[in-house]
Amino acid sequence: MSTYQATVSAPVNIACIKYWGKRDTKLILPTNSSLSVTLDQDHLRSTTSARCDPGFEKDALWLNGKEDEIKPGGRLATCITEMKKLRKEYEDQNPNEPKISGYSVRIASENNFPTAAGLASSASGFAALVYALATLYKLPSSPSQLSLIARQGSGSACRSLFGGFVAWEMGTSVTGTDSFAVQVAPAEHWSDMHALICVVSDAKKGTSSTSGMQRTVETSELLQWRIKEVVPKRMKEMQKAILDKDFDTFATITMRDSNQFHAVALDTDPPIFYMNDTSRAIVAMVTELNRVSVENGGGLKAAYTYDAGPNAVIYAREKDMKEIVNMVCHYFPLLASTQPYEDRFKLFSAGEKVGEMPLPAGFNEGVAKVANDAASSVSRLIHTRVGGGPRVLDDSKEGLLDAQGVPRKLVA
Amino acid sequence: MSTYQATVSAPVNIACIKYWGKRDTKLILPTNSSLSVTLDQDHLRSTTSARCDPGFEKDALWLNGKEDEIKPGGRLATCITEMKKLRKEYEDQNPNEPKISGYSVRIASENNFPTAAGLASSASGFAALVYALATLYKLPSSPSQLSLIARQGSGSACRSLFGGFVAWEMGTSVTGTDSFAVQVAPAEHWSDMHALICVVSDAKKGTSSTSGMQRTVETSELLQWRIKEVVPKRMKEMQKAILDKDFDTFATITMRDSNQFHAVALDTDPPIFYMNDTSRAIVAMVTELNRVSVENGGGLKAAYTYDAGPNAVIYAREKDMKEIVNMVCHYFPLLASTQPYEDRFKLFSAGEKVGEMPLPAGFNEGVAKVANDAASSVSRLIHTRVGGGPRVLDDSKEGLLDAQGVPRKLVA
Repeated sequence: MSTYQATVSAPVNIACIKYWGKRDTKLILPTNSSLSVTLDQDHLRSTTSARCDPGFEKDALWLNGKEDEIKPGGRLATCITEMKKLRKEYEDQNPNEPKISGYSVRIASENNFPTAAGLASSASGFAALVYALATLYKLPSSPSQLSLIARQGSGSACRSLFGGFVAWEMGTSVTGTDSFAVQVAPAEHWSDMHALICVVSDAKKGTSSTSGMQRTVETSELLQWRIKEVVPKRMKEMQKAILDKDFDTFATITMRDSNQFHAVALDTDPPIFYMNDTSRAIVAMVTELNRVSVENGGGLKAAYTYDAGPNAVIYAREKDMKEIVNMVCHYFPLLASTQPYEDRFKLFSAGEKVGEMPLPAGFNEGVAKVANDAASSVSRLIHTRVGGGPRVLDDSKEGLLDAQGVPRKLVA
Repeated sequence: MSTYQATVSAPVNIACIKYWGKRDTKLILPTNSSLSVTLDQDHLRSTTSARCDPGFEKDALWLNGKEDEIKPGGRLATCITEMKKLRKEYEDQNPNEPKISGYSVRIASENNFPTAAGLASSASGFAALVYALATLYKLPSSPSQLSLIARQGSGSACRSLFGGFVAWEMGTSVTGTDSFAVQVAPAEHWSDMHALICVVSDAKKGTSSTSGMQRTVETSELLQWRIKEVVPKRMKEMQKAILDKDFDTFATITMRDSNQFHAVALDTDPPIFYMNDTSRAIVAMVTELNRVSVENGGGLKAAYTYDAGPNAVIYAREKDMKEIVNMVCHYFPLLASTQPYEDRFKLFSAGEKVGEMPLPAGFNEGVAKVANDAASSVSRLIHTRVGGGPRVLDDSKEGLLDAQGVPRKLVA
């Protein structure tokens, strides 16, 4: 008897034009298009194994070794059901293929980044889930077709089906058939696009993005203008900036769109605040870095963006990253002592001390105060870059399920 | 020979519908109407004496005992020139009146609240300046007519010409003749409207409102929607709420409009942040107080509002103020030890300890953390209420200029 099993990995993505608001909460259809950069899964990824077998009594899923309930009608169930449907169609069209669409599936998924990193793991997680089943089922579906299903797991997951620079076109259909992801450009097109994730400590648990965005849809008057007038224009400008590798425009739109997302969150009743004083300090630092560069005849060097939390992601070209890492460690010196920055791109040579190298000439250090206490610090720094889309892994080496179809790693 | 001298006082006002953006920076014509509550000048006021004399060589002004330069073409010069013009017209129409419009003036002004209180003193200051000259010149002008001139000193000053609840109608004329303040209702109409000013420590000097609002006009796309669609509707709803003494609507619009003002500041490029983590904690506290009240079948108890800085002003009815003062002192306990709350309305009896009385049943204390460090605390608490418009004082008792026309209080 055959074993039907596949293992894949899928990347994280961070939006430059933000998704905030659903027009259909069940199908997860957004109120505006969005655009993101896929990050390198050598550094951050979800890995997922999927297996189907006539002996399995029911569908089951383990996340980081812990069994997760597949609620009927829930997001996980929807994705699994839709993938089984695609397999069934494929079997109907290819009568020689084994009839496995009726088997129950077992799925094990792991993230290689801690939840404490404050990264939305739902995007990479649902992309990996859908891609693992597509691989298991040998489906000929394109990434855009799969993105229609991943979208129903978690909106932003649809963008993790592609590497590089990815647009999620909102579509207009009420059934959602035209609300999918497309690739604007592959990672190789602009490979020196790097990203620095600054994990910011925050005592307060923020509003969940699912409930927060719906409150914004219901109560923010400014959101309507953003949806109608602002985002459509920015989507076009941003796609052109990416094709032209125009960092100035890319950075300007990225920062303005992050700020506008937080503006409509603040315009919500009651207001939603995701950025805290540490986030504000990083905004001030990046603004000053860019000001000095422009004043000296250069262009913008960095672009901050904030999702539904206080963490900053700073996009910059590889050549400027050393200066930026040094600057972050200068303002948040605890970082160097408590959680060393992992210099995976070998920016610093042996004699150089991260955080203690000089700031650029003309930089007004007083724009933000140096934070030397854990409460207002950056607790972790992850340096990565633009990367490719989901990968099929060698199941015999990297599979997460053992021969019996039980996760190798189990947590009670 | 006669002495021409007058002394007046004028109140502070705090907007519930915010003024942010000028369509004419010289005439100070706003991009939207605004609405404020005038605070009781028994507690917070600017006092101004004005004198004119043929022996004075030039116009001169002292602010808190320190001479201020009257720059030609500047805001002070504009207000003084316009008031002299009104006097000249009055003299032309009343030939028996003394011809004093050509005399130079000396003006001394003092605020009874420290700059550290973080209150915009320009509103009460320019209102007092204009009202002092109107009194000196015995002008028959109405407060709305005087507000046209005060507006050219500082936009929000036009609203301090009235007590109670005051609208600044933006007008449409390019010359500004229809951009003036009107009274929506006098203080007596809703006399239990109280206000608690929470002065918040902030290490960082924020963007000045003059430059900040122009950057918003130039770069925020959301501002246009606020101007066109949101504020006109809110102005109408707010006026009705005041006439109906409908605190729920008053509070809802006040909080939403404060949040929207800060949202458009954040939508500015580079973004402007006025609220800090302490401001956010007060928002969370008020939101929770209202939530518990509504859950128990009551209405809203409090409304926060923030101007161009981190300080909160909490509007509430007198009956709810005791609970609110206790709650602020609970979250910011340093307040009680460093700067005792002045209980001018005798809310607390001898045995009661401010900040240590129980919070309301069902209140989730964890919405904000208790701040026990000076850096993130509230440094001062001022309890006041709605009050009347400018007052003419007895110059012989409260005049700030001596017999020679020199400020009694002089600072080098």
